[in-house]
Amino acid sequence: MSQQQDCLFLDVDTGIDDAFALLYACAAPQARLVGVSTVVGNVSLAAATRNTRAVLALAGRAEVPVAPGAAVPLGADPNDASAIHGVTGLGHAVLPEPAEPAHAAHAVDAIIAAARAQAGRLVLVATGPLTNVALAVMREPELPRLIKRFVIMGGAYREHGNVTPSAEFNIWHDPEAARIAFRAFGGPGGAPVVAIGLDVTRRTTIDGADLDALAARIGDRPREGALMTFLRDSARFYFERTERQSGQRFLVMHDPLAVAVALDPTLVETRRAAVDVETSGRLTTGATVVDWDGRWGRLPNTDVAVTVDAERFRAAFFAAMVRLAD
Amino acid sequence: MSQQQDCLFLDVDTGIDDAFALLYACAAPQARLVGVSTVVGNVSLAAATRNTRAVLALAGRAEVPVAPGAAVPLGADPNDASAIHGVTGLGHAVLPEPAEPAHAAHAVDAIIAAARAQAGRLVLVATGPLTNVALAVMREPELPRLIKRFVIMGGAYREHGNVTPSAEFNIWHDPEAARIAFRAFGGPGGAPVVAIGLDVTRRTTIDGADLDALAARIGDRPREGALMTFLRDSARFYFERTERQSGQRFLVMHDPLAVAVALDPTLVETRRAAVDVETSGRLTTGATVVDWDGRWGRLPNTDVAVTVDAERFRAAFFAAMVRLAD
Amino acid sequence: MSQQQDCLFLDVDTGIDDAFALLYACAAPQARLVGVSTVVGNVSLAAATRNTRAVLALAGRAEVPVAPGAAVPLGADPNDASAIHGVTGLGHAVLPEPAEPAHAAHAVDAIIAAARAQAGRLVLVATGPLTNVALAVMREPELPRLIKRFVIMGGAYREHGNVTPSAEFNIWHDPEAARIAFRAFGGPGGAPVVAIGLDVTRRTTIDGADLDALAARIGDRPREGALMTFLRDSARFYFERTERQSGQRFLVMHDPLAVAVALDPTLVETRRAAVDVETSGRLTTGATVVDWDGRWGRLPNTDVAVTVDAERFRAAFFAAMVRLAD
Amino acid sequence: MSQQQDCLFLDVDTGIDDAFALLYACAAPQARLVGVSTVVGNVSLAAATRNTRAVLALAGRAEVPVAPGAAVPLGADPNDASAIHGVTGLGHAVLPEPAEPAHAAHAVDAIIAAARAQAGRLVLVATGPLTNVALAVMREPELPRLIKRFVIMGGAYREHGNVTPSAEFNIWHDPEAARIAFRAFGGPGGAPVVAIGLDVTRRTTIDGADLDALAARIGDRPREGALMTFLRDSARFYFERTERQSGQRFLVMHDPLAVAVALDPTLVETRRAAVDVETSGRLTTGATVVDWDGRWGRLPNTDVAVTVDAERFRAAFFAAMVRLAD
Repeated sequence: MSQQQDCLFLDVDTGIDDAFALLYACAAPQARLVGVSTVVGNVSLAAATRNTRAVLALAGRAEVPVAPGAAVPLGADPNDASAIHGVTGLGHAVLPEPAEPAHAAHAVDAIIAAARAQAGRLVLVATGPLTNVALAVMREPELPRLIKRFVIMGGAYREHGNVTPSAEFNIWHDPEAARIAFRAFGGPGGAPVVAIGLDVTRRTTIDGADLDALAARIGDRPREGALMTFLRDSARFYFERTERQSGQRFLVMHDPLAVAVALDPTLVETRRAAVDVETSGRLTTGATVVDWDGRWGRLPNTDVAVTVDAERFRAAFFAAMVRLAD
Repeated sequence: MSQQQDCLFLDVDTGIDDAFALLYACAAPQARLVGVSTVVGNVSLAAATRNTRAVLALAGRAEVPVAPGAAVPLGADPNDASAIHGVTGLGHAVLPEPAEPAHAAHAVDAIIAAARAQAGRLVLVATGPLTNVALAVMREPELPRLIKRFVIMGGAYREHGNVTPSAEFNIWHDPEAARIAFRAFGGPGGAPVVAIGLDVTRRTTIDGADLDALAARIGDRPREGALMTFLRDSARFYFERTERQSGQRFLVMHDPLAVAVALDPTLVETRRAAVDVETSGRLTTGATVVDWDGRWGRLPNTDVAVTVDAERFRAAFFAAMVRLAD
Repeated sequence: MSQQQDCLFLDVDTGIDDAFALLYACAAPQARLVGVSTVVGNVSLAAATRNTRAVLALAGRAEVPVAPGAAVPLGADPNDASAIHGVTGLGHAVLPEPAEPAHAAHAVDAIIAAARAQAGRLVLVATGPLTNVALAVMREPELPRLIKRFVIMGGAYREHGNVTPSAEFNIWHDPEAARIAFRAFGGPGGAPVVAIGLDVTRRTTIDGADLDALAARIGDRPREGALMTFLRDSARFYFERTERQSGQRFLVMHDPLAVAVALDPTLVETRRAAVDVETSGRLTTGATVVDWDGRWGRLPNTDVAVTVDAERFRAAFFAAMVRLAD
Repeated sequence: MSQQQDCLFLDVDTGIDDAFALLYACAAPQARLVGVSTVVGNVSLAAATRNTRAVLALAGRAEVPVAPGAAVPLGADPNDASAIHGVTGLGHAVLPEPAEPAHAAHAVDAIIAAARAQAGRLVLVATGPLTNVALAVMREPELPRLIKRFVIMGGAYREHGNVTPSAEFNIWHDPEAARIAFRAFGGPGGAPVVAIGLDVTRRTTIDGADLDALAARIGDRPREGALMTFLRDSARFYFERTERQSGQRFLVMHDPLAVAVALDPTLVETRRAAVDVETSGRLTTGATVVDWDGRWGRLPNTDVAVTVDAERFRAAFFAAMVRLAD
């Protein structure tokens, strides 16, 4: 079976870069997006679900089922990231309200059903906290053996964090769930976690000039208007924040990189190691701890991305946006 | 609707006293046992499931569906209690191997389905670690509003623990799950946790003389032989251990008391308070912490049993065993 | 050597009940108060030192050296208890400013020097956080073998705490220091910790009628005025708080009971066990955990007070106040 | 006052590389070694004290006072490193037993006395766990304002640890002490911690060829024999271990680099930031956490070494060994 026929399932907490990741997944030639589930994280579960459906509609894929999942983390109260993604989660962007779906499965059931239906060819990507994935793997321990690949955006492996000095947001938001997920994957016959952390995502940024160049390429396409308006308006909120912090306007492509690696693992170099999540530190809760030297005596469970071909990734992303405008 | 028509659902990790609790639930006149789910705890998930089905068959209720659930805790590796319940989990008792079921729902689905089907009259009793219940309430946050009552055997509220100085086994075995369960129940419109902890269960013991008296009462009933053999053989293992430790032969009726309170809440006096579970202590992980004085400023979520009418409970239990022998 | 010739050394964080304890120690016929050291706790180190010297002057013992110690806990930032003891630490009482001492040893040196000078007959009493004691025992590991007895006011052993549901103030204020102290005492040849916790101190209260009765007894003594004014003014602040909380006006004699037990161990019944302090719990930091059943396999290090002869203690305290008025 | 007249005080847990650091300190032209204190760490307090005195004698500096300090860490039981330093702590080296000293101050008193005596020009170097330094700064909070510079060998700031994936040995052995030390230094008017962690020490290794070259340089000096024998015999033990682990024979100059930086801060580039120590993590206890981005809102307390001029350091070390052989 060719790689083109892979199926893609995304678990998202749709803020700005999740939206970009969804658009990318909709436009990818190598795989078919068969489902999306939502989780509390950047925004509330309700907002994540609404944003996800609105972005799918923007991409012309309103038919993709969106399954809402956990509204609270396993291990603590929710902490949103509205400072980063805006009150709605999509920055300054305004999208039409999506039509209500006829029905919706729960995220846990949707993930398990997709993994069973597409056994051996489902690529699961999580770009939010791992709450739904942890519940799914507790509910169906075979999940790591049913899927083809499991890619997460999450963690900081050699680098410092983005919420605390030690922790990246998605892991920090539900460390207990992350610990369950890392523990469950990578066993005998099972997919490891492919971990796309800040070590590589921080190397993948876009800015206003990139969006101008994209606009020039797709200026005459049918859906150019709505797409460019969304990309510009959502990115502008993010640009404003980074400008206040560092004087530079850019957007870090955390979540799109995870989708890109799901579609093409050669975009990153990885190193296989045992990873666990700190859940009880005074300073370090949410840290992803890598046992590079094998001190723990555990089997490796994670392919940690250590370098990224940022230019090839950016080219792939913008090519997908061009396709999407058709 | 009369109290007799309540429906009972048990979540168990069937060791010796879970078995007694199952027998009691099968014989209770006030409620109908509609389902059982199993969880890792005293024994492995496989053993808990096997034991549960064998005990139901012994009680003539082989038709009750048994739904297997979590094989590992949320928060750590499993730690069994074979020192207390024996290698099989049923002490010296040997029961016929149960027939394989045609199919089996997962515990999480079975609990949620029962709560929906019997909305407002399901009494849920958990006599093992709260892993399944935590997964169910994460999956269906309405659970506390769907059920009539939620009774757990678990925790030590004023007393010291039975695994560590601070922790009781069921809570200690999966503190993260217990924390999720306590947090989820007791909110507006939702059932609180009715907590049957060591504070009351330690007051409810039976010994060899009690079993002799029971045997005398049921000597001519049809099922006397198999029932008394099981009760004596499983209890004997427990007696041997307490005799080694304290010189006295007795069995603490932890789990049967939880079933009894599920059927008749007046057997215990309770005090309502906010309870939370320690998950990160060096010494105290698994402790159930009660905020008796309202220092936390949280809404009470638990009815903590503080006294028990032990004699009335014992009488009810033995009366049920007599009925079961018919 | 008779018990009358014991020497007493107090380590205090002088708030209201520490002041009562100091007065008691000054008036005790059985022992000579040879020194006092101060520690941050109820109030700052500076306030504790000032209050201590002012109270000693009130008792006619201004010559007793007062050695200031730790201004911050080992394990965290200081948290005062001005809600309980007032801004100065002595409620509504106003005492003359004490004369500045010629010099002052550090608490750690003063404790060690006293233990060496009075080897075998020094009774050390700590009524505040154990920061100084921990530093002293790290500096001089022989301390538990040099002293005759070590009595602390601190901990909650079967009861709930008074700062959090699990922790008593003195332990909670510096759990790491308490852990060091409990670990160091009670070894081969060394004094155990005699732990006077909330389990017994809550049974020892006084109220306005007690102070009236005392006033009647000492109405014609030379120092009656200053003493009764101090007792009434400092206690009144405490009474006002308990009245707001419970409707009843009373003062709990935490610290005086520790001094009383230092002088007469028969005032309490104790049970010897291994005690350790939780330092890393999310809910339980500062809890004193007792291994009543020997599960840890450690040697007992503590005589935990479990009952108190409250009437005999109260009589002894008021008799001392009468002596002090002379 | 010129930099040549700085005074040096070392706090050590003398294993192999501490011994090299001591030899270096004895031969440094820029500063006078005025005292050494010892602490449990690589080896027991008794062994650390014995080794220190034997190494000073080898260097012809037997008159330098050696003050023994803490025999146990503040925060846990001791864990030695005999796998790395050998049973005696000096690998295969055998040194004559040092003469017993007439008397010895305690490390805490010795550190404080030296800081007061040489106020403004004492450079304090800690190459072991920070137990003594924490006790000293609790005992004398002015210490950071009395000394000129405080250099530690300890921590892993961007790199992974050498005991666990997160922790370096010296910090991990007494995390509570390290936390106290980092908290106390770097305040207004006080010296910061100059942190020489694995990030730079791993860049500074020597091997057998280096020792051969040294031997050639000092072949005709008076003390050549004893010195080279010691260097070769102690290093050989270390070489054997690294050869088993990695196939390469080398010795990491952790502690000598700290002494070198104490004498010449320009050997490393540092970045100033707030550092704290994790004391309660399940996986990360002992980690030195750096707040590079100022998220905590605390004042910076540490100059973290981020790069090292390894060649210049090695040249300085071997030049000192040549001087020592005279």
